[in-house]
Amino acid sequence: MTEFEMRRRSFLVGSVGTLVGVGVAGPAAVARAQDAGPLPDYTAWKNPEALIMHSEFTLETKRGFIGTSGITATDELFVRNNLPPPEEAFAAGDDWEVSFEGVGEPRSMTVGELKALGITTVATVLQCSGNGRGFFDHETSGSQWLTGAAGSVLWSGVPVRTVIEALGGAADGMNFMTSTGGEDLPEGVDPLSVIVERSVPIEHAMEHAILAWEMNGQPIPLAHGGPLRVVMPGYYGVNNVKYVKRVALTEAETDANIQASGYRVRPVGVDGAPDQPSMWEMKVKSWVTHPLADADSGKVQIHGVAFGGINALESVEVSTDGGETWEAAELVGPDLGRFSWRPFVLAADLEPGTYTITSRATDAEGRVQEEVTEPNHRGYDYSGWRVLAVDVTVA
Amino acid sequence: MTEFEMRRRSFLVGSVGTLVGVGVAGPAAVARAQDAGPLPDYTAWKNPEALIMHSEFTLETKRGFIGTSGITATDELFVRNNLPPPEEAFAAGDDWEVSFEGVGEPRSMTVGELKALGITTVATVLQCSGNGRGFFDHETSGSQWLTGAAGSVLWSGVPVRTVIEALGGAADGMNFMTSTGGEDLPEGVDPLSVIVERSVPIEHAMEHAILAWEMNGQPIPLAHGGPLRVVMPGYYGVNNVKYVKRVALTEAETDANIQASGYRVRPVGVDGAPDQPSMWEMKVKSWVTHPLADADSGKVQIHGVAFGGINALESVEVSTDGGETWEAAELVGPDLGRFSWRPFVLAADLEPGTYTITSRATDAEGRVQEEVTEPNHRGYDYSGWRVLAVDVTVA
Repeated sequence: MTEFEMRRRSFLVGSVGTLVGVGVAGPAAVARAQDAGPLPDYTAWKNPEALIMHSEFTLETKRGFIGTSGITATDELFVRNNLPPPEEAFAAGDDWEVSFEGVGEPRSMTVGELKALGITTVATVLQCSGNGRGFFDHETSGSQWLTGAAGSVLWSGVPVRTVIEALGGAADGMNFMTSTGGEDLPEGVDPLSVIVERSVPIEHAMEHAILAWEMNGQPIPLAHGGPLRVVMPGYYGVNNVKYVKRVALTEAETDANIQASGYRVRPVGVDGAPDQPSMWEMKVKSWVTHPLADADSGKVQIHGVAFGGINALESVEVSTDGGETWEAAELVGPDLGRFSWRPFVLAADLEPGTYTITSRATDAEGRVQEEVTEPNHRGYDYSGWRVLAVDVTVA
Repeated sequence: MTEFEMRRRSFLVGSVGTLVGVGVAGPAAVARAQDAGPLPDYTAWKNPEALIMHSEFTLETKRGFIGTSGITATDELFVRNNLPPPEEAFAAGDDWEVSFEGVGEPRSMTVGELKALGITTVATVLQCSGNGRGFFDHETSGSQWLTGAAGSVLWSGVPVRTVIEALGGAADGMNFMTSTGGEDLPEGVDPLSVIVERSVPIEHAMEHAILAWEMNGQPIPLAHGGPLRVVMPGYYGVNNVKYVKRVALTEAETDANIQASGYRVRPVGVDGAPDQPSMWEMKVKSWVTHPLADADSGKVQIHGVAFGGINALESVEVSTDGGETWEAAELVGPDLGRFSWRPFVLAADLEPGTYTITSRATDAEGRVQEEVTEPNHRGYDYSGWRVLAVDVTVA
C-alpha cells in the first residue's frame, strides 16, 4: 500500500477521532469524500479527501482538514481560477515575461531577472472574496463556499517596491497598481468582460505586495498561479493575480469587468458599479475547525484559525453556548506576522450534552468580528460568528 | 499533462535558471534525477526529482531544492528510518497506544486521548546526526549525506510536560526521558542491538519536547513517524523517535545499542561507549542553497539556510572569496522561533569569474559556525563552512 493510500485509508476508516477530521458531519462527510469524482488534471496532485469540488475551477478545503500548524499544506489548499490555467505560461518558468508600465523606465523582465533583483518572504491569508457565500440566506450565484476558500501560505518573491525602484520609480500621478493575468481569453467575447485584471491602491502595493515564485518552500504550482503570482497581503484573493504578465502603475482603476462591476459590495439586487466598495481589505475573522460534530466528554481541545485581515490579530474568544458567554482562547505556535492566520486553542471541560461552539476574533485596532454579516448582492465574505458556529454532541 | 508532470517537466527542461534548481551540478544533476529509480512505496507520494535515494530507508533533499520560505515541504523532506516503517502502527491512527512509565500514575494512553490533553505548535530543524557525512575525508559507514538530511518543519502536538503532569508528575529520581519506537524488530537478533530507543536529559524534554501528530498542517505520514512522533527541539533527528509506543522517565539512559554505543562522538577508530558525548544538542550551522554552480553576472541573490541548533540564531555572514572577506546577510521572512532555521539572503554584485561562496552563522550565545569539522569516527554533522562552500562560475 502506498503512503497516499495509507493516508486515504486513515481518513476514511479510522477511529471516531479520525472521522471527525474528514469534514463537518461524520459519516455523511465520509460518504461525500468517497463519492467525490476525480480532481481536475491541473490539481490531480492534491489530496481529494481534503477537498470539496464545486466545479473544475473551484475546490474548497474541508473545514476539518485545517490543523494547528499555522500554515495550509499546498496539496490541501483551495483553488479558485477565473479562467482555464495557462499551461504555456507555467511551462515558461524563469523565461516568463512580465511587462512593467507606469514607471520611469518601462520594460519587460523575465522571472529569472526578477529572481536576481531581491528576495523576501511573507505569510498571508489567501481568501476568496466569496468565502462563506453558502452561509447567506439570500440566493447568490457562484460557488457556495463554506469556510474553506481560505488558507495561510508562506510566499517568497521580490517586493514590488524593489522592482519599481529598479525601473526608475513610479511615474507621476499614479494611484493604482494594476496587474493582469496571463490566461488565454476565450474568443468572440469582449476581452474586458473576462480578463483577470485588478487595480489596488498604490500605497498598499508599494509597501506590502510581492511578485512570488515560491509557496510553502516549493515553486508555485500551475493551480496556484506559477510561474509568478502577485501576492497582496491583507487583501482578498482576487487581487493576488496569477500568471501575472503585466504590472502597470496607473492613474485610474482598470475598466475590466472584474474591477469595474465585479467584486463590488452592494445591497442585494443592485448592479455592480465603480463607486461601490471594492473587495480589497479583508475583515477580522475566525472559525472553529475542531470539534465539528462529536466529542468525548471531559477535556476537549477546541481549536480553529483566526486572522485580522488587513490588520494584525489581537485575540480570540471561544463560546460553547452559542455566544452567551465567552472565554479567552490561547494563540499557539509561532506568530507568522500581521497578514497570516494563527491557530487558537481553548481547553474546555465538557459534560455530555449538546453545545453550540463558535469563536470571535479581535484585531490590533480593536475591531471585533461581526456577529452577523449583512446580506450583500454577491454573497461576499460571510464572517458572522453566529452562523459560523457548529453544533457539537458530547457523549 | 498533470500538475506533477508539469512540475517535473519544469525542473528537467526549463531554462538555465530552472536547471540550477535541480541540484548541485546542472546537467549532471539533471541526468541523475532522470536516472533515479522509483522511490520506495512508503515514500511514493514524494517528489522524486527533489530527492537523492541513498537506500530504501535514506532519502536526501537536493541542495538546490531548499527555497526561501523557511519551511521544508513535506514531500521534499529527507527520510531516515532505522527499521522498516510499521504500517499497522500508522493505520491504528488515534487508537495507537503509548505507555507512560516513571510517573506518578503510569498507564497507557491512545493518540486520541493525547489529542484531548493539550495542543501546541513548534517549528524545529530536523537534522540527521550523519548530515554532511559525505564531506569527511576519512572512510565512514552509513549514508554519505551532503547537506540534505535536514529540513525545517512545523509540528503540532501535546507538550510532554502536559502529559507527565496529567499522570501525576515524574517519579522521584528520574533523569532521562526514554522513548521507544513502535517498529517490528527482526527475529533472531538481540532486541537491544536493533531497537530504536533513545534517552535525553529530562530537563530538556520537560521544557521543550512534544508528542506530535501533525506536521506542516497535515497528519504526520508513515515515512515521518505517524501516527505519533517525539519532537525534541534543538536535538538531532535520532532523538525524535517515530511511531513512539513508550515514553518512560528513567534514572539511567537505555542500554539499547543506539544509545549506549551508537550516536557517540569519538575519534576515528575508537569504539562507541556510554562515556562519550551523545548526539543530543545540535551545533550552529548554515549553508548556501543558491547559486550552486552558475549565475549570470550582475546582481545575484545568494541565499541559504541557517540555524543555531540548541540556541537561537543570531546572524549570518556570506563570503564570495572562500572566507577571505565576509558580508552580513539579511534574514528574511517570519522568525519561526529558537529551534527553526531561517532563510538568509545576500544581494551581491558579481562580475564574470569564479567564486567560492560560503556562509557562516553565529548563534545567540556568540558561538560561531566552525571553519573545519574535526573527523569523528562515525562522520557526524559536518558543519565546517570551508568545505560546505560551492564554486560558482559567473558569466
